[in-house]
Amino acid sequence: MKFKINRNQLIQGVQGVMKAISSRTTIPILTGVKMTVDSGGMTLTGSDSDISIERFIPAEENGEINLEVQTPGSIILQARYFSEIVKKLPDETVEIEVGERFETQMRSGASEFSLIGLDPEEYPRLPQVEEQNVFSIQGDLLKMMIRQTVFAVSTSETRPILTGVNWSLEDGQLTCVATDSHRLAQRTVKINSNATELSFRNVVIPGKSLNELSKIVEDSEELVQIVVTNNQILFKTKNTLFFSRLLDGNFPDTSKLLPGDSKTTLVLGTKELLQAIDRASLLAREGRNNVVKLVTLNENELEISSNSPEIGKVFEHVAITSMVGEELKISFNAKYMMEALKAMDCSEIKILFTGAMRPFLIEPQSGDSIKQLILPVRTY
Amino acid sequence: MKFKINRNQLIQGVQGVMKAISSRTTIPILTGVKMTVDSGGMTLTGSDSDISIERFIPAEENGEINLEVQTPGSIILQARYFSEIVKKLPDETVEIEVGERFETQMRSGASEFSLIGLDPEEYPRLPQVEEQNVFSIQGDLLKMMIRQTVFAVSTSETRPILTGVNWSLEDGQLTCVATDSHRLAQRTVKINSNATELSFRNVVIPGKSLNELSKIVEDSEELVQIVVTNNQILFKTKNTLFFSRLLDGNFPDTSKLLPGDSKTTLVLGTKELLQAIDRASLLAREGRNNVVKLVTLNENELEISSNSPEIGKVFEHVAITSMVGEELKISFNAKYMMEALKAMDCSEIKILFTGAMRPFLIEPQSGDSIKQLILPVRTY
Repeated sequence: MKFKINRNQLIQGVQGVMKAISSRTTIPILTGVKMTVDSGGMTLTGSDSDISIERFIPAEENGEINLEVQTPGSIILQARYFSEIVKKLPDETVEIEVGERFETQMRSGASEFSLIGLDPEEYPRLPQVEEQNVFSIQGDLLKMMIRQTVFAVSTSETRPILTGVNWSLEDGQLTCVATDSHRLAQRTVKINSNATELSFRNVVIPGKSLNELSKIVEDSEELVQIVVTNNQILFKTKNTLFFSRLLDGNFPDTSKLLPGDSKTTLVLGTKELLQAIDRASLLAREGRNNVVKLVTLNENELEISSNSPEIGKVFEHVAITSMVGEELKISFNAKYMMEALKAMDCSEIKILFTGAMRPFLIEPQSGDSIKQLILPVRTY
Repeated sequence: MKFKINRNQLIQGVQGVMKAISSRTTIPILTGVKMTVDSGGMTLTGSDSDISIERFIPAEENGEINLEVQTPGSIILQARYFSEIVKKLPDETVEIEVGERFETQMRSGASEFSLIGLDPEEYPRLPQVEEQNVFSIQGDLLKMMIRQTVFAVSTSETRPILTGVNWSLEDGQLTCVATDSHRLAQRTVKINSNATELSFRNVVIPGKSLNELSKIVEDSEELVQIVVTNNQILFKTKNTLFFSRLLDGNFPDTSKLLPGDSKTTLVLGTKELLQAIDRASLLAREGRNNVVKLVTLNENELEISSNSPEIGKVFEHVAITSMVGEELKISFNAKYMMEALKAMDCSEIKILFTGAMRPFLIEPQSGDSIKQLILPVRTY
């Protein structure tokens, strides 16, 4: 293998696949990045066996030559060293040549590296994904959906299935649900019409995979193609393939958890409530569970308060747009409430309470494409 | 005590003194920030007993009213909570009122905090500094001097005196020296003429104090007044006093360490050498001591190389402007060399070698206001 490549293109390519490479893997070859070049361009692969990322750098793009291939071939190089070296090379181009026993020469300006490579034949094969269940979502919407649900996954391995977000698709509507059993986040979106015949359920994507995917997908209207199989999900963007393993097991049926009725319904400003809880939580952190208290004072105003005997007390008044139903006193975890409010994509929200000890539901003031459910804390 | 203050002014003031406040202090009252207001303005104090910082917020400045004092007085509040609360308050002004048993009310917009305060009489007194030995340096020059020496202090407590930078003043020339016994950094500056009669030696300022000071001093031509006493040094800028304890003990006489002659003298570009060593050190980190090798190839070129058996080799060629004396092979710690080169404030440097096992000296190509001495590593 021998080729010359534009250094900036190589930096971007390597950084793209590095997100899948962990230095703490139990499979030594996965600390490497695999590179394959042929006349069409260069393919870079990184994997930690849960996530795999493949990036393609075309030999020519928009009239610019990215790489000149003299001899095609493949090599695996230690990802951590390779990525740092590439970033610091002095010249605009890098020449890479693989010699005997996978010894790899890299030349750039007056700098010459000789790296010990590994046999590319030993690299595990990427999952083979049959493209039967395919649909697509705009990149910006995909990122938003991830942001609005992934924070609610469980961080405990007690019930591994809860560390993922459950995706299901029915009648052209995609539903994403995450819960750690103290709170639940759900987002639904209509997907493009040519996939209305497609349906699946219990596709549970690890939260970690979605967080990494979110860093790769661009915040644009460009479509991301999504392929679902039994044990893998594949996200395709321009020049990048992102594979994630799916979690084994059955995600609990969460539809019954959402309350149907409400004893108290409040409509109020998202930002005003978020900021008041943020301040009140400053003193709540020391205590157990980071708890703040919400009390309706009258039809126009509620009070958020918290009390830490050693530090002090705080009282916040927040205006209410409308209140229907009974007066209310309720306590909840400030962190859960703030994360839920940050995921709400609207200036006004509706909160539906069914009693001080029952889960309460946060929705946009109009519509129900986002639902955030929080279990209160007993303090009265 | 009762007063109203501009929130942004309070944020800046609190952040200024927070740098001296440690949450890991053994003296509980020092986790607090002390505030004193009178008709002239507000004084904030923070201290970890090594460093003390006092900031003054004038009641009126450039025609703007910063605070309105109703009743003067003093209070101590938990610094960590107070600073976070102040940052998040909703309104442009904050009203602070101290009631019985030091209970402190803070009101801003619809937000009301009630914090448990401490008796200001219990706060330790700041060092009393007699203003006999006073001189001044421009803020930007002071920052530069700190940057060029403080990195070379020892991080080990084996010889505590080496964790500080030794300042001495003689004949109007200030000399700052730091050494960890593997390398040495020295910077000299002429100071303003009205202090030529002033002299001192063995004023050893803890490296940590200088790092904190550097964050506070502005990168401008404004003068910083410096007051030296037996066991304290005080830096005065507009509205801020920065006190640091001095280290006990005698700093070693380092003047004899600087070599007088040279067997090989190289002149070359600072940045070119730095970047070559930076790349070569990428592979050297794994090995012991982070060692790279320098070999003069001919009168116009030297080679920097490093070798890590498990990862690979690197060779870097660097052009030399001039070489006088013998050929040279020498090995040294790449981190020490890079830190020394980053401290050189010039595009070309002179390196004076007196043999492969003797310390070598780096100076600006012309002048000797900066001297960096590095002990080589035996590898041949």
